[in-house]
Amino acid sequence: MENNLEEKRQSGKPRVLIVGGVAGGASCAARARRLSEKAEIIIFERGSYVSFANCGLPYYVGDVITDERDLLIATPEIFKKRFNIEVRLRSEVRSIDREKHEIEIRNGGTGKVYREKYDALVLATGAAPVRPPLPGIDLSGIFSLRTIPDSRRIREQITERKAKRAVVVGGGFIGLETTENLVRRGISVTIVEMLEQVMPPIDPEMAVPIQEHLTANGVSLCLGDGVAGFEQDPVGNTISVITKSGGRYICDMVLLAIGVHPEITLAKEAGLEIGRLGGIRVNDQMFTSDERIWAVGDAVEARDFVSGEWSLFPLAGVANRQGRIAADVILGREARFRGVQGTIVCKVFNVTVAATGMSEKSLNRRKLSGQEGHYEKIYLHPGHHVNYYPGAKPITMKLIFSTEDGRVLGAQAVGEEGVEKRIDVIAMAIQQGATVFDLEEAELCYAPQFGAAKDPVNIAGMIAANALRGDAPVAHWADVRSSQAYVLDVRERHEFALGHVEGANNIPLHSLRGSMSELPRDREILVYCAVGLRSYYASRALRLNGFSARNISGGVKTYHAASGEPASEKPNDTLPPK
Amino acid sequence: MENNLEEKRQSGKPRVLIVGGVAGGASCAARARRLSEKAEIIIFERGSYVSFANCGLPYYVGDVITDERDLLIATPEIFKKRFNIEVRLRSEVRSIDREKHEIEIRNGGTGKVYREKYDALVLATGAAPVRPPLPGIDLSGIFSLRTIPDSRRIREQITERKAKRAVVVGGGFIGLETTENLVRRGISVTIVEMLEQVMPPIDPEMAVPIQEHLTANGVSLCLGDGVAGFEQDPVGNTISVITKSGGRYICDMVLLAIGVHPEITLAKEAGLEIGRLGGIRVNDQMFTSDERIWAVGDAVEARDFVSGEWSLFPLAGVANRQGRIAADVILGREARFRGVQGTIVCKVFNVTVAATGMSEKSLNRRKLSGQEGHYEKIYLHPGHHVNYYPGAKPITMKLIFSTEDGRVLGAQAVGEEGVEKRIDVIAMAIQQGATVFDLEEAELCYAPQFGAAKDPVNIAGMIAANALRGDAPVAHWADVRSSQAYVLDVRERHEFALGHVEGANNIPLHSLRGSMSELPRDREILVYCAVGLRSYYASRALRLNGFSARNISGGVKTYHAASGEPASEKPNDTLPPK
Repeated sequence: MENNLEEKRQSGKPRVLIVGGVAGGASCAARARRLSEKAEIIIFERGSYVSFANCGLPYYVGDVITDERDLLIATPEIFKKRFNIEVRLRSEVRSIDREKHEIEIRNGGTGKVYREKYDALVLATGAAPVRPPLPGIDLSGIFSLRTIPDSRRIREQITERKAKRAVVVGGGFIGLETTENLVRRGISVTIVEMLEQVMPPIDPEMAVPIQEHLTANGVSLCLGDGVAGFEQDPVGNTISVITKSGGRYICDMVLLAIGVHPEITLAKEAGLEIGRLGGIRVNDQMFTSDERIWAVGDAVEARDFVSGEWSLFPLAGVANRQGRIAADVILGREARFRGVQGTIVCKVFNVTVAATGMSEKSLNRRKLSGQEGHYEKIYLHPGHHVNYYPGAKPITMKLIFSTEDGRVLGAQAVGEEGVEKRIDVIAMAIQQGATVFDLEEAELCYAPQFGAAKDPVNIAGMIAANALRGDAPVAHWADVRSSQAYVLDVRERHEFALGHVEGANNIPLHSLRGSMSELPRDREILVYCAVGLRSYYASRALRLNGFSARNISGGVKTYHAASGEPASEKPNDTLPPK
Repeated sequence: MENNLEEKRQSGKPRVLIVGGVAGGASCAARARRLSEKAEIIIFERGSYVSFANCGLPYYVGDVITDERDLLIATPEIFKKRFNIEVRLRSEVRSIDREKHEIEIRNGGTGKVYREKYDALVLATGAAPVRPPLPGIDLSGIFSLRTIPDSRRIREQITERKAKRAVVVGGGFIGLETTENLVRRGISVTIVEMLEQVMPPIDPEMAVPIQEHLTANGVSLCLGDGVAGFEQDPVGNTISVITKSGGRYICDMVLLAIGVHPEITLAKEAGLEIGRLGGIRVNDQMFTSDERIWAVGDAVEARDFVSGEWSLFPLAGVANRQGRIAADVILGREARFRGVQGTIVCKVFNVTVAATGMSEKSLNRRKLSGQEGHYEKIYLHPGHHVNYYPGAKPITMKLIFSTEDGRVLGAQAVGEEGVEKRIDVIAMAIQQGATVFDLEEAELCYAPQFGAAKDPVNIAGMIAANALRGDAPVAHWADVRSSQAYVLDVRERHEFALGHVEGANNIPLHSLRGSMSELPRDREILVYCAVGLRSYYASRALRLNGFSARNISGGVKTYHAASGEPASEKPNDTLPPK
């Protein structure tokens, strides 16, 4: 069959049928045309739109994007005129005849069912919102947000039905972005999330600043509790969301945002291989188990770039890249998908959270499954630019790296400014297999408005490199609880007086050299300060004087995030060299 | 002698003297202490401050930073208490006795001259503003801006003498940043720059948007003209700046910002090797030609990371890194300086310009000197985030890459938002030796506020990779002038009607497939549109249909920058896949 396609390519007229016309399907089609003027390319899209800005939907709900047409990145007319690509809307592909190389399509307008032959078939069927079979799930007023009609219905609920209270089920991207936009529309929102944290892709302690920010913006959080069902108030037209713990949240509308699952019905019924996570199984050329059928985008499982494991990453950029690769392969080019790093970003009110590579959670899952890799993590809280220039905002960062070779495994960051920049730089570093020693030496933009002579990325690399070189091994707050160590707080007396870790001893950094005789030589000393800088200086001095000392990474500010207890003060460390 | 230092290290009490206490010197001292508790470390600083925020001075002039103390990153007290490092201010090191390992110091307060022995000496003498011996250069009212007292004098000129008109000589970083801040203080500014462009490190066509932005903010530009001298008006207390072309600019103050030169007097008189560019010659361990003397920061020449050539890069981040490396080497560690990429950023009013790696200018200089490397360049003008989300600002980018292996050689970008982020990502890529094929595949943050599923970095990589693969070879506007090619404008008729390149033929993209019979098969076709996207689609279609076609990189918008002629329209290309 491969030969058959090769013949078609030689004759120049392969027939490429694409099921689904949003990110991956549209990219595949456009790329295919750029590789062949003669290929016949048809997109079958079940919905009423192709190539729309899925990621913009929450902002259309929030009236940030006011004109629905702005969400249409391309129309069937543009595809026709610009690319000579045919788009058939409201066209549901119902089955694949792999023997005959045909698909069966139902025209949603006329009801007509017909078949089309393919030389190459691309499944870009996407993903659908998860809708668990809970009591009351089909009540009116319970919405998902995945398509333009979805967002239109939610807008109507706000404007026509005057919704004032909403429950958002799920604290991931869509949940948080929509929460912000509902608040923007004057709606009070409660988020119900099954996990003990919002933003599941990042580690729990990194989600704490987002949770605080949500609360500060009037959002109620109900974490660690799942939804048991929904009930409609027979009189008031309100919905009660009942949680597993017995909570009851009364509201005028519910947004279900508990994730998406790959749309694989078509693939499954055709007997194509499905992965363990429920996505279509493809190789790095986006081949399914049928060599005439490719699959791309949210519908497929992809390799995690760092761990090599199969994963689900419903991301627009990934779908686009996979679409282009499928087109390349179909038209006879060499192209391979490198895997997904899982680079993500989400803005909620004024806070941005971003991540790339592996989380500690996912590393620990690997550990549990026996694929142990040795890693260390460090925390830091640098300003997004120099403190001497007005307006510096702190970024809380976590860097995860291999203790074997220093390779960067993942990074997460939260803050108001400059967050995504640092994650993008580290994403590039991870793609290149860079180590923490490379981050140390990275030469990045510095002017007072943008960064510092030592950029947060450099500082992260330095802390990690200092740990790996054995100069400044790091400890974590969990170590304090689990060890018999002597805990040393090197902040100033007034900072210590405002609050400190139980059992900690206070010797301010500037008195340390004169007070070393007070310190134990038979126990490990765990040192902390506000953010981890002064304690780094202290741990160096202690180690050079023969003590066994480690620096508690991230200081009080990380303790605060990890424990939920209030920080006693604002970090006021100053860096000596400009 | 090396052994001698080694002995001292073994005994644990090397005496490290550091000349200069701003970026490189302060970093070196702090790092040295972190490596040795017993080393004796003394900083000799000629001025009245150590470790001050040099890069903040223009903003102190502009009252953005209002408290002078904010510029002091560390004080001698902090160095003493926190690091046990002695700082001697107003202490000018006058000579080095390399035989006896001694330096001679003059205390600027008491006038006392004395000597100190060193085991290791670090020269972090920095750079001084260039002051050419022009007639009138010493008139009052002519300033440099390098130190806190410099900025204080300029502030006085503004507040006490009510300066209203200023001439800034030199259009580099300091010139532009100070211009903005003078305008902020209500002063009308004329910039006199010898080159035909501002921001000498970037290529001239990339400086055009900055020049336009300066003009739009009321700044007068006098480019391509040098200063011949200064005259004082005997009555009005004004200064006339006389240019070589005969221009005369009357003002109340002059800022000399024509660059800095390494401060090498001490090194030169001690007989240390000086490089061809006038900086102290060091190796990658920051050794000078004397194995007991190290030199770091603005005073030294460093290897260009990309070209390997000796260069002068007076950058704070570089000075810091070199300072740390010198400390490492002095205290017996393995550490090597990797070279300087020349990553820079400058904000002027609302526009940010940033660059990393080599410019086309510097590549051409290499070519002239016979060290030819084959490179290509591409231009693009993406939005800083998706167009469907309100507030997208265009970024003008230039990517320079090797045509031999696709390695990224340099990048430049100008725009209002997200400029430094893209340059930082590419800086990381260059450090790692990445290719344009890696930029294509980079997985970067995407949410509507921050980028696009295809980030500008990806798009730059794609355009370059398409050129290298031969899919879409690029042409440049200079090729249009020098060739007999058929020039094809594929914009819409109304766009063409508003203005187009002389001699161009207009066939809108959507009509192209039906009009190919009109096109010549015996001549090359150079295709353009507004920004280069539609013309890319067109050039692909043409090439697949057997025409010889190239895409003019950057389209009308780049023509505008390169030629100074107004663009006929706003670019309105839309991208098909989300």
